Amino acid sequence: MKTEILNAIQDEYPDDFAWCYGCGRLNTEGNHFRTGWNGDETVTFNQPSEEYTAIPGFVYGGAIASLIDCHGTGSCSLALHRKNGFEPGSGEVPPRFVTASLNVNYLKPTPQGALLKAVGRVEEIHPKKWKVFVELFADETLCATGEVVGVVMPASFMK
Amino acid sequence: MKTEILNAIQDEYPDDFAWCYGCGRLNTEGNHFRTGWNGDETVTFNQPSEEYTAIPGFVYGGAIASLIDCHGTGSCSLALHRKNGFEPGSGEVPPRFVTASLNVNYLKPTPQGALLKAVGRVEEIHPKKWKVFVELFADETLCATGEVVGVVMPASFMK
Repeated sequence: MKTEILNAIQDEYPDDFAWCYGCGRLNTEGNHFRTGWNGDETVTFNQPSEEYTAIPGFVYGGAIASLIDCHGTGSCSLALHRKNGFEPGSGEVPPRFVTASLNVNYLKPTPQGALLKAVGRVEEIHPKKWKVFVELFADETLCATGEVVGVVMPASFMK
Repeated sequence: MKTEILNAIQDEYPDDFAWCYGCGRLNTEGNHFRTGWNGDETVTFNQPSEEYTAIPGFVYGGAIASLIDCHGTGSCSLALHRKNGFEPGSGEVPPRFVTASLNVNYLKPTPQGALLKAVGRVEEIHPKKWKVFVELFADETLCATGEVVGVVMPASFMK
């Protein structure tokens, strides 16, 4: 299984918007989630570090929510970027999304030590508002599902 | 404003279940969220550290989701413990909940540097399944709302 994202949308975010704890390439303390296309689906891989414990042996739900969240905004960005005619790696600056809502259903305990894979399907619900349906697998086991509504970053996020 | 929780439900979790990255008192890398009663509402305070950035100046949405998540399961535990006749500090072991679902609506950007306060109202929907409605304030500003459904920890969480 290919588990590396060669052309991640997060590589293309402008420096000012690349500090996200989940997926910002410039946040040295963060998780550096990387989100790319796999055909018409989006994918992010992550192996949570040991401190992200819920009950010993199982991954912290907040870490799963974070992965789904960043996978969602990254997927929105990928999708609008593609609609605009671009792919990550092209050098064009993609639109930056923020999360309007995040829903996570925890179907079963997510074992620590497994490679997690978030898979997304993206749907446009408004030119500046996209929805992503996410499935979260630990190895091959579906452990959680989620929905993220992302919106193009509003001016209120500019300092 | 009182911003310390004297008797947190997390103080009462058995050692084996006190390793949660969000709220486990034994997780040295974690956030140590503390959830207590304030009358009939539940409350958790937290000031996220600087690395929990979304866009510079604003708190990472995953950190907000984590706070709401742990506040939710802690609130469920408080509520069922009270139903059973106990308050945190009594020395009785409370029931440990895990998250079945987590919904977060991000209403406005949450500024970094502010003290965050999660306030919860708890509702029993089944003897082993409780719902918590959460409001997340930065200082006095409502920045996010959430709903957490918690269930008494099933046997599948025992290694």
